[in-house]
Amino acid sequence: MMKNKKIDKLWGTAFKKQPKEEAVLFAAGRDVVSVAPADEVLIPFEIKASIAYAQALYEQKIINKTALNKLLKALKELEALYQQGKFKLDPQKEDVHTNIEAFLIKKLGIDLAGKIHSGRSRSDQAMVDILLYIKSMNDIFKTEIKKLIKVLGQTAKKYQKTLIPGYTHYQPATVTTLANMLDAYKQAFKKDLKKFKAWNQLEEISSLGAGAAYGSIFPINKKKINQHLGLKQVFQNEIQAISSKGEAETLMVFNLCLLMNHLSSLAQTLIVFSTQEFGFITISDEYSTGSSIMPQKKNPDSLEVMKAKASICQGYLMSLLSLTKAGFVGYNRDLQWSKYLVMDAINESLLAPKIMAGVIKTMKVNQKTMAQKCSQGFILAQAVMEGLAMEFNLPMRLAKMIVEETVKQSQGKFELKILNQVIKKYPPAGGLKIKVSAKQWAQWTDPLAVAQAQMKK
Amino acid sequence: MMKNKKIDKLWGTAFKKQPKEEAVLFAAGRDVVSVAPADEVLIPFEIKASIAYAQALYEQKIINKTALNKLLKALKELEALYQQGKFKLDPQKEDVHTNIEAFLIKKLGIDLAGKIHSGRSRSDQAMVDILLYIKSMNDIFKTEIKKLIKVLGQTAKKYQKTLIPGYTHYQPATVTTLANMLDAYKQAFKKDLKKFKAWNQLEEISSLGAGAAYGSIFPINKKKINQHLGLKQVFQNEIQAISSKGEAETLMVFNLCLLMNHLSSLAQTLIVFSTQEFGFITISDEYSTGSSIMPQKKNPDSLEVMKAKASICQGYLMSLLSLTKAGFVGYNRDLQWSKYLVMDAINESLLAPKIMAGVIKTMKVNQKTMAQKCSQGFILAQAVMEGLAMEFNLPMRLAKMIVEETVKQSQGKFELKILNQVIKKYPPAGGLKIKVSAKQWAQWTDPLAVAQAQMKK
Amino acid sequence: MMKNKKIDKLWGTAFKKQPKEEAVLFAAGRDVVSVAPADEVLIPFEIKASIAYAQALYEQKIINKTALNKLLKALKELEALYQQGKFKLDPQKEDVHTNIEAFLIKKLGIDLAGKIHSGRSRSDQAMVDILLYIKSMNDIFKTEIKKLIKVLGQTAKKYQKTLIPGYTHYQPATVTTLANMLDAYKQAFKKDLKKFKAWNQLEEISSLGAGAAYGSIFPINKKKINQHLGLKQVFQNEIQAISSKGEAETLMVFNLCLLMNHLSSLAQTLIVFSTQEFGFITISDEYSTGSSIMPQKKNPDSLEVMKAKASICQGYLMSLLSLTKAGFVGYNRDLQWSKYLVMDAINESLLAPKIMAGVIKTMKVNQKTMAQKCSQGFILAQAVMEGLAMEFNLPMRLAKMIVEETVKQSQGKFELKILNQVIKKYPPAGGLKIKVSAKQWAQWTDPLAVAQAQMKK
Amino acid sequence: MMKNKKIDKLWGTAFKKQPKEEAVLFAAGRDVVSVAPADEVLIPFEIKASIAYAQALYEQKIINKTALNKLLKALKELEALYQQGKFKLDPQKEDVHTNIEAFLIKKLGIDLAGKIHSGRSRSDQAMVDILLYIKSMNDIFKTEIKKLIKVLGQTAKKYQKTLIPGYTHYQPATVTTLANMLDAYKQAFKKDLKKFKAWNQLEEISSLGAGAAYGSIFPINKKKINQHLGLKQVFQNEIQAISSKGEAETLMVFNLCLLMNHLSSLAQTLIVFSTQEFGFITISDEYSTGSSIMPQKKNPDSLEVMKAKASICQGYLMSLLSLTKAGFVGYNRDLQWSKYLVMDAINESLLAPKIMAGVIKTMKVNQKTMAQKCSQGFILAQAVMEGLAMEFNLPMRLAKMIVEETVKQSQGKFELKILNQVIKKYPPAGGLKIKVSAKQWAQWTDPLAVAQAQMKK
Repeated sequence: MMKNKKIDKLWGTAFKKQPKEEAVLFAAGRDVVSVAPADEVLIPFEIKASIAYAQALYEQKIINKTALNKLLKALKELEALYQQGKFKLDPQKEDVHTNIEAFLIKKLGIDLAGKIHSGRSRSDQAMVDILLYIKSMNDIFKTEIKKLIKVLGQTAKKYQKTLIPGYTHYQPATVTTLANMLDAYKQAFKKDLKKFKAWNQLEEISSLGAGAAYGSIFPINKKKINQHLGLKQVFQNEIQAISSKGEAETLMVFNLCLLMNHLSSLAQTLIVFSTQEFGFITISDEYSTGSSIMPQKKNPDSLEVMKAKASICQGYLMSLLSLTKAGFVGYNRDLQWSKYLVMDAINESLLAPKIMAGVIKTMKVNQKTMAQKCSQGFILAQAVMEGLAMEFNLPMRLAKMIVEETVKQSQGKFELKILNQVIKKYPPAGGLKIKVSAKQWAQWTDPLAVAQAQMKK
Repeated sequence: MMKNKKIDKLWGTAFKKQPKEEAVLFAAGRDVVSVAPADEVLIPFEIKASIAYAQALYEQKIINKTALNKLLKALKELEALYQQGKFKLDPQKEDVHTNIEAFLIKKLGIDLAGKIHSGRSRSDQAMVDILLYIKSMNDIFKTEIKKLIKVLGQTAKKYQKTLIPGYTHYQPATVTTLANMLDAYKQAFKKDLKKFKAWNQLEEISSLGAGAAYGSIFPINKKKINQHLGLKQVFQNEIQAISSKGEAETLMVFNLCLLMNHLSSLAQTLIVFSTQEFGFITISDEYSTGSSIMPQKKNPDSLEVMKAKASICQGYLMSLLSLTKAGFVGYNRDLQWSKYLVMDAINESLLAPKIMAGVIKTMKVNQKTMAQKCSQGFILAQAVMEGLAMEFNLPMRLAKMIVEETVKQSQGKFELKILNQVIKKYPPAGGLKIKVSAKQWAQWTDPLAVAQAQMKK
Repeated sequence: MMKNKKIDKLWGTAFKKQPKEEAVLFAAGRDVVSVAPADEVLIPFEIKASIAYAQALYEQKIINKTALNKLLKALKELEALYQQGKFKLDPQKEDVHTNIEAFLIKKLGIDLAGKIHSGRSRSDQAMVDILLYIKSMNDIFKTEIKKLIKVLGQTAKKYQKTLIPGYTHYQPATVTTLANMLDAYKQAFKKDLKKFKAWNQLEEISSLGAGAAYGSIFPINKKKINQHLGLKQVFQNEIQAISSKGEAETLMVFNLCLLMNHLSSLAQTLIVFSTQEFGFITISDEYSTGSSIMPQKKNPDSLEVMKAKASICQGYLMSLLSLTKAGFVGYNRDLQWSKYLVMDAINESLLAPKIMAGVIKTMKVNQKTMAQKCSQGFILAQAVMEGLAMEFNLPMRLAKMIVEETVKQSQGKFELKILNQVIKKYPPAGGLKIKVSAKQWAQWTDPLAVAQAQMKK
Repeated sequence: MMKNKKIDKLWGTAFKKQPKEEAVLFAAGRDVVSVAPADEVLIPFEIKASIAYAQALYEQKIINKTALNKLLKALKELEALYQQGKFKLDPQKEDVHTNIEAFLIKKLGIDLAGKIHSGRSRSDQAMVDILLYIKSMNDIFKTEIKKLIKVLGQTAKKYQKTLIPGYTHYQPATVTTLANMLDAYKQAFKKDLKKFKAWNQLEEISSLGAGAAYGSIFPINKKKINQHLGLKQVFQNEIQAISSKGEAETLMVFNLCLLMNHLSSLAQTLIVFSTQEFGFITISDEYSTGSSIMPQKKNPDSLEVMKAKASICQGYLMSLLSLTKAGFVGYNRDLQWSKYLVMDAINESLLAPKIMAGVIKTMKVNQKTMAQKCSQGFILAQAVMEGLAMEFNLPMRLAKMIVEETVKQSQGKFELKILNQVIKKYPPAGGLKIKVSAKQWAQWTDPLAVAQAQMKK
């Protein structure tokens, strides 16, 4: 990933603050950056799995103590090289497994290194590598979602009494507080978090030891292998262990789809709120971009891209499901593509929660504009109707008809006088014998009081 | 759903047994049957939710005891009418909510029945109806998956020593037992079962009381409402409760995709095994169909359709994810379509686990054909290689090269003699000083012994 | 489909006009209406195909003149019965083919009617039925799209000088006319129309005569059959003819996805324009709905549902593509599901172009509100920049920097004075020796002149 | 893309031929190769578009001859640098547009180079770059599909009289020739070719000159620009030109999905035919891979991966459709992701037709095995039934029942004697007065004669 401090661009001199580097990266996509080879990302996980496997081979007496020690030493050396950026995959060697085995053979000779593959296949190696990778990414997402939840909670606290229209169908339905609205998204992300946690319960399964789907006659002990890996479960059946390739990937990508959809909805809401016509919020320059042609432009690109990435993840999920349909028993090569799909989905969405937290933290809230909208038109019609029903013990259906008639007879403005006129004639024969007082009216048309009464603990 | 005993068809007189009615229904699709209105299916759940809501209104003193009793009596009467097939939705009345409220108003008058909608919106009603529906369907799937698991377990027990090639890439890789192969699918369905159970943990949330997304000023008690509904959780935020429409649906359909993909893979395996060329199994006439033009034809339609339905469910999931992307805050009408999607997905897959259990229970296994394949060609090459490595403490990589060279030098048949010749020259300089004995060879090439040794407890 | 004149609903008494029946149907979805059996829809096409087939059998001397005449008479009688609603599919008979063959056998005896299936299979029958169905639906869509194009053209004519901000990223970028904006959608639908026409070129292929994928030894003449059907092309290869099941369906559904995506984008634009905050247009009551709880509510449901249906079609396409992947040579039963998918996609979108035309025709345009936005803020910055560049032969990049600096120094309002101040200092050393005159400024900041100059013929 | 001559791998010493480099690349996926930055691929297209734009600016007198010549010289120099691998994108500069404009400014100074952006936006630049890219890729696909069609045609010619069972539902339905089967796929690819050609008719539209979606006040002449670009059409409306971003991409990816699905079906057929159990064909070592654990393994990876890539393309299509749904009028940043989707889809499938042509050309056909299957069991039942119906003028339905009864009474083998016995008793009362002669029987059960008679010209 690009780590530059400064990015030249054809826009932005009208900005007061320059966009955040991570926001630029998030929005820039893959225009000027390449996607790393998949197996490069897996190197540390392959090393970890090989260490676990070597230890287990020793415990089963397949290799002796000396061999173990040499292997461990070589693997740790390899890890250090990798950390220092000195170990690169050689594309002449098919994959990460071949590269690392070749490293060991070169270092330790085939007599020793040639033993580490005892009872192991590239199939179970590949399974465990990607699983360890997903697990670590899943942990990162959990952390980032928690941070976003925290930011939403903190921001909500600042706006407990800040009025904002409550919309349905893009139309004002009633009033609420900005705190309540932010809390809604907080709850959505809490739900996502539960799903990321469920991944560990449902898919964190070790398959190392399953070979190429049918085990081996080596006295492999799958539980001991896993003691070294530390995963939640151990596979129950070799065939299923390998045939299930793509499943941990699929659940991960599905969860990403859910997260990204929640983020895309919050993004859409903020995009609309930040239009000049709504004018409810101002997105910080740090999360905006300009135009190559329009000098005044400030665009909410970070948020638009959030929506793009939601769509992107959906396609990866679709590919995964199509890919894993109707496979013949045992491993089939088609399944390899599940690796790229999960990696692409993770890469596309990795920065998303962080960017959203940044947008929320830095946005300017135009409280006055929002408050004005909360006493315009008939936005409090539901409250008046409910007040009427409660106060005079009217059936809701009747109260609703009365208020609808009031709305119909009014000229864009809600008035007590008209309401009482309607009541008098309702139902036609005689009319109701009730009258709404100015005090009642004031209570039902106090936006903040209404907003707070509507929320239930 | 069609409940006929006998179906006329243009084929099948060559069959010994007639297809099962449920298998015909499963494969016939929607050719001659219609899909019921969505809200017809929801009637019992709407009644259940209305009963709960009425009770909670009483507890909050919004209606009195007499009103409650009248409402409950009317709702129970309605339920009885529905059970007897005497209550049908009137298409003049927009939806199930309008139909049932109209029934109550007609029965009890607007003064009483007009109160049940106090603080309630069609939005939260619709949410809770579909949730109760999904919950009940989820329970059915859990039951059917358990039954399928049981059938697989019982069938596996019968074939503990039945040899079958273990395939990868559609090619024989090694040998295994049919029991082991059936157990692999059993484990897959156990994994699915865990996911259907997780739905309850993750999505069984009551949203009744959230109104149209912003609550109401009626003193609604969301927890009391839910005590009557008995769902696992209560919503935390009104906006989120309603904006989350489609989420319980999405997880349900995702789980169905996983289940159907597992079923489709088992189906594909059985289709291939039942080709005349493999000849491993014979699908019972009860789960087969014939041709309108080819007199001898017997087709594994039940299994082919399983694959179709896996694809079908994937599309519904895709629609759900696209539908719920980038929604503006609060309820939007687009979300209504999530109802049809989850219902269609459930209807398409409802019979699938049962049909598969039937296919497994009634299939004929041609053990001799399978056993023959387990000693042909080089199917035991892995075992010989591993035996060699273990017995003589050779590195796997070396043992593999030796066996590969043996395969290359052989004429379609694995021979000890050639193996020992290869060993003598390997590595070139001098050759290894070992020799495989006839006893060792016999052990490594005994398919059942190998199959059993490969499986790990 | 429901044909009721009046629909009872829990809302709408505040409306001046009642919603159009077709708008209610469009938005009501499948709540209270059922989906007809697929083969019921195919009856007229099966009759048409059978007539063509009988004629061709006669021409090949497989049946004689008397037999032909009897078959034709019976088929025409059947068609009359169907038109009068007197012929219904018997669900005891598997499908439309079986039902109609049974009708013929009952009417004419097996000796005669038993011959019509000579060389024919349900596979090629099913192919041709659905093809004729899609062709007729494709014709309807072409007609409806043309009508929508016409409405957009007529409406655009009314608003040639009506200013509206030109948005990018939901932010005002410059000014344009409403006519230009409507024309953009007109062009989009013209592009769609070309694609619906291309379907005929690419997929209108007769497969009748291909049997069950391998022809028959009857001397069937595929070209003569098609002379009676009148389709554009005749299949080239029996296997491909039948294996291609799902392909005409897939292209149709893909085209529907494109159409619905265009409609969804227009819908989204109108939804945003009709928010109270934008206030650019007012959707007619005829295409709106109300709320069961909020008396003042008027929602753009017709447009929201348009978006839902775009998502719905995407899922059907996905299912089709997943379904038709990796099929083994020849016909496989999975493919039958392509029928329901194309029918569902067509049913969901059939009313969409008409509804959109209605919305456009009846919407109220609030020209004043739109015009106000066209002279606010820096909306004309691009025009000023371009004027500057053109008039003084400045490089665009320099002109852009000058205008950006002007925007930065201004307080929300674009002023000539500040522009000239900036120019004087730009580039820092000395500044430019030019000055914008009041006349030039007036020209560059005249919204209508700018809007018109920007559009190219 | 990796261009290595030799790839080290953990398998393959048992192979007689080494896998083709392109087959290894195709199957290796992205394990050890990276994906290039998207805009790197676009460099030559951006240069081409800039040349066209500069020329058109000159023709409109926006720049003078000297300026034009300098720009053209600099752009050609840039192209030469790029071709020599000496021009790389600087990731500090946001995209290809910024990079190239920066190059020009550095080379020619801002006074001159700063003019090339007159009336141009990154939006229309990006549109035209990707369009030119897709067009060139579409041309490559057309060429490769034609080659594949040719190979299928040539191979078919070799197997005109080679019998093979004709399958439906994975079961033998009748007999046919291998030539006929290969021709079926040839026809499928011819259909694909028509669709790739239709892309040019439907989507080859120049949008250069549309600016950021609303044109510019510069006197840009869109038709002249396009004369230099040479595309089929010119945009009709600026807004639509830019809002349509993603549409040329979507049709391209859709066509790729269709192509890949055809390839995946041929792949699946060949995978099944090359199982040891079918044994119909042998895939060349050049298109196979081995196992890291099983010494004897030879897997049809090239074909399996073909299926994976079909699924992969489906996901990209899905993302594109979800991405382009419900966009607000004008350009939105979400659309940028359409670029990566179309590029990824193209990259994944680019080698597919060539690989398939290679597999077909090099596969070994085991004619004897296939021929044996063509006279086994009841594979000729349809021919016998049709012969019976034709010869004795029986209704097909009756002939079918007779043959079905014959099948039922036979013991796995089709016999004339049993057929004649059944005829005698059919229908029950009295039986038919006909008898099949040995000569007739021989004719109806001659596989090659039947196969040829079934195919229609």
